[in-house]
Amino acid sequence: MKRIAQVIGVKPECFEEYSRLHQAIPQEVADHIHACNYRNYSIFHWNGMLFSYLEYVGEDFEADQAKMAAHEPTQRWWDVVGPMQQPVADRKDGEWWAEIDEVFHQE
Amino acid sequence: MKRIAQVIGVKPECFEEYSRLHQAIPQEVADHIHACNYRNYSIFHWNGMLFSYLEYVGEDFEADQAKMAAHEPTQRWWDVVGPMQQPVADRKDGEWWAEIDEVFHQE
Repeated sequence: MKRIAQVIGVKPECFEEYSRLHQAIPQEVADHIHACNYRNYSIFHWNGMLFSYLEYVGEDFEADQAKMAAHEPTQRWWDVVGPMQQPVADRKDGEWWAEIDEVFHQE
Repeated sequence: MKRIAQVIGVKPECFEEYSRLHQAIPQEVADHIHACNYRNYSIFHWNGMLFSYLEYVGEDFEADQAKMAAHEPTQRWWDVVGPMQQPVADRKDGEWWAEIDEVFHQE
């Protein structure tokens, strides 16, 4: 298992709707997230920023990211929520959410 | 169990040392964190911000926060790492790390 945290901005005028939509995401999207080996997946909000935390239980995160992106219901979901987000300037090439570094962990 | 996420700033000139210290925190501090019912506790860094994620397994988070603060080795640890941190302006009264809101979760 690999712990992954990520950040992205959310447009202030979109946050209420973003939050509302995330109270009940499409079941086929939720199932696909699970199929792509995300577990214990949370998103938090602070001051226009979204922070995600997840536990990745697969063997190849890049391959599972590609699998995530190839799923048509997930694409439709991203077409809705993506325009509400504002990626950070210092993300790596190919990233939407920017993966951030773990400084500390204890069980 | 309650998932808790928090944010705080870290002074840029202090981050390297902050990170180094967190690779091996004092054992009595780690034990006390556990005794205060924190589990699966991680801190991540992005762009001068620290983002923590933890799973609180106690019954009274405020009481356990008070217990955390009453522990002398933990106080000594905070005397070292506290000055490296920069609390966010919009934290609540009494907070050092600011607790932030969960927008989404799936297992």
